[in-house]
Amino acid sequence: MLQLLTLEHALEMLQREILPIEESEWVETSDALGRILAEEVRAGDDLPPWPRSTVDGFAVRARDTHGASESSPVYLRMGPEVAVDDAPGGRLLPGEAWPVATGSVVPDGADAVVMLEWTSVHGQVVEMVRPVAQGENIIGAGEDVPAGSVLVPRGRRLRAPDLGVLAAAGITRVKVLRRPRVAVLSTGDELVSPEVRDLPRGRVRDANGIMTAARLRQEGCHVVGPRLLPDDPQVIGQALDEARRLDAVYVSGGTSAGSRDLVPQCLSGLSGVRVLAHGLAVKPGKPTLLAVWEGRPVVGLPGHPLSAGLVMELVGVPAIRLRMGLDGGRRPTGITACLASEVSNTSGRMLCVPCRLRAAGDGWLAEPLWSKSAAIGTLAVADGWFVVPAETVGLAAGSLVTVLPLAGGVGALD
Amino acid sequence: MLQLLTLEHALEMLQREILPIEESEWVETSDALGRILAEEVRAGDDLPPWPRSTVDGFAVRARDTHGASESSPVYLRMGPEVAVDDAPGGRLLPGEAWPVATGSVVPDGADAVVMLEWTSVHGQVVEMVRPVAQGENIIGAGEDVPAGSVLVPRGRRLRAPDLGVLAAAGITRVKVLRRPRVAVLSTGDELVSPEVRDLPRGRVRDANGIMTAARLRQEGCHVVGPRLLPDDPQVIGQALDEARRLDAVYVSGGTSAGSRDLVPQCLSGLSGVRVLAHGLAVKPGKPTLLAVWEGRPVVGLPGHPLSAGLVMELVGVPAIRLRMGLDGGRRPTGITACLASEVSNTSGRMLCVPCRLRAAGDGWLAEPLWSKSAAIGTLAVADGWFVVPAETVGLAAGSLVTVLPLAGGVGALD
Repeated sequence: MLQLLTLEHALEMLQREILPIEESEWVETSDALGRILAEEVRAGDDLPPWPRSTVDGFAVRARDTHGASESSPVYLRMGPEVAVDDAPGGRLLPGEAWPVATGSVVPDGADAVVMLEWTSVHGQVVEMVRPVAQGENIIGAGEDVPAGSVLVPRGRRLRAPDLGVLAAAGITRVKVLRRPRVAVLSTGDELVSPEVRDLPRGRVRDANGIMTAARLRQEGCHVVGPRLLPDDPQVIGQALDEARRLDAVYVSGGTSAGSRDLVPQCLSGLSGVRVLAHGLAVKPGKPTLLAVWEGRPVVGLPGHPLSAGLVMELVGVPAIRLRMGLDGGRRPTGITACLASEVSNTSGRMLCVPCRLRAAGDGWLAEPLWSKSAAIGTLAVADGWFVVPAETVGLAAGSLVTVLPLAGGVGALD
Repeated sequence: MLQLLTLEHALEMLQREILPIEESEWVETSDALGRILAEEVRAGDDLPPWPRSTVDGFAVRARDTHGASESSPVYLRMGPEVAVDDAPGGRLLPGEAWPVATGSVVPDGADAVVMLEWTSVHGQVVEMVRPVAQGENIIGAGEDVPAGSVLVPRGRRLRAPDLGVLAAAGITRVKVLRRPRVAVLSTGDELVSPEVRDLPRGRVRDANGIMTAARLRQEGCHVVGPRLLPDDPQVIGQALDEARRLDAVYVSGGTSAGSRDLVPQCLSGLSGVRVLAHGLAVKPGKPTLLAVWEGRPVVGLPGHPLSAGLVMELVGVPAIRLRMGLDGGRRPTGITACLASEVSNTSGRMLCVPCRLRAAGDGWLAEPLWSKSAAIGTLAVADGWFVVPAETVGLAAGSLVTVLPLAGGVGALD
């Protein structure tokens, strides 16, 4: 009999048992999008390395502008222009105003910049109608990032802006974790490759393999497979034995408590493999298996594609993220939406409901999609899914729910 | 003087002016993650092609189980087992119960399946202690997706589950839009390549080029560049003239109203280019330029990296999504969070505030990050950003805000 584990408990176990990859490699910063930083990057020099103007205008001594107003302007001597790509030509003296552009180095002797719009030039005299405070319109040396401080922390999955920060600091190569190598297996005598055009009666094309592989690639994995396996304990056992030497194994089908419950049976024959959970208190997704071998996750997904897709988001993605040193147990981020119709939960388990999202007023409306758990079409119709907690008998129309994308990543909700 | 356009107005103009790419190409379904479907895909056959059992149990005529209970079981004759990978061996007769597995074809003559747990077998007799209704535990032929109906709609950015649905229907090649080719240019005499180790005084390494290129790649673009350009109207003009023949141009710097306002000047010299907006009523991001040439966007980003990163999310990403036929004007999806400290808005413009997200109770806390707009370090610290509307003088601590990721996509909030 299945011992059903709550999702929370399952995630805690994964967090405790999965060990992150330690091997790293150097890549060009420009190729590092989505990779995970293996060690923190510190700034070698101050950023900016010298005080820079943040506006177009005139560098001055702030005290020289005190009291300036429309009715009583201050007049300063025009100094040499500081080109944006050059060093200032000397030191600013009291009573002087040096033209600067946004980004220009502020000359020594100056401690503020007056914006162009509060000035007018009369020959060699600059008229100013507003005072400035010390430091105004200047970003000081190291004020952005001081030399030696952390630019980007270890374990960060690098985003486009992170690459910008690294480029600004002159860091053109970064040490990142190597990509996880993950096996994707689909079990079932009834399965045939998606390439089979005329389906023999009783057969079904494998959907989980391609779906799981794509989802893992999206997370940055190198996928081995998908590979189809018959319901043969010998074959499954050998495939699992080979696959476990990779960073993670995702196997779908053969995990239910029926007569073909082969995956847990084969796993228990492999030394060192520990089954953490056989059965999740989640609907759909009861026939989910979680195991570990030397810190590597083995995730058994249900055979039904809709269930497999949901379980992948619930525990499959957290498992591989933990293997990548990310915080896989962290609460996933979702979109708050208003439930379009009531949902009841008589399962006594946590219920995952696929839904469509529609813009409504300032917010979002979540329309639950109902289907038998074997229905696969729902996967292409759903924008995301939300949870009805186990202890809840239902949610009324108008309740607020947190909708999670059915497959994280770019454009999931386009 | 800049004519400031509201973000809403700017997005409307983009939506009206940008034409989607029309050229498409065929790719393997397994390589199609993130690509945009150029034409809808319909199911060639019913899915499933025949009625299948959704549970392990016995196929029966529902009427034969009427009245079955623990105290008064029904007894049926054992029929031949239907293997999950085979066709049933004939037609089920009244009074028979045929063993089926999850996924087995339901034999003709049967109209329901009794779950294994409500049965026991005594030799050639199957005892049932629960009745089933017609259709129970069966997914009918075409009940999931009927032949001829739309499996995945045109214009969908393909997600992992979409690939699963296509595979299930035997669709191994799909017609997708070709990738947009996009030029990324950075202007400014002060700019040097990130590879320059020892920065000459006054110079600054280009951060916008790599950041913008990475963000566009994340959206599925083929990027030409990044390329550095001096503040020379001749050079900029020629580069823009060449670049506009691609699908989109992203150029940073040279768009402020100061002395080096070269990009709008050069663009206005190119025949057929129409400037839609020079200046956005957004802080930071005022020096933003939006133009079109034959349905292709030309996006002028501010020179400051933090502003450039925000403006990229505000209008840059919507512009390229529109070129890809996606709904770029659609309201972006974000995470509802509780503001950790008060934020004031004296700008009279829409204010974008970078923030950190922290888990707090059941929800999220948004901690505003303050920095001069020239500061780039903030880009690597922020999880996302939220908006304070122009008509609002501020938001109190505890207000609910919608936090948008600083760079969409996988793991942006890991």
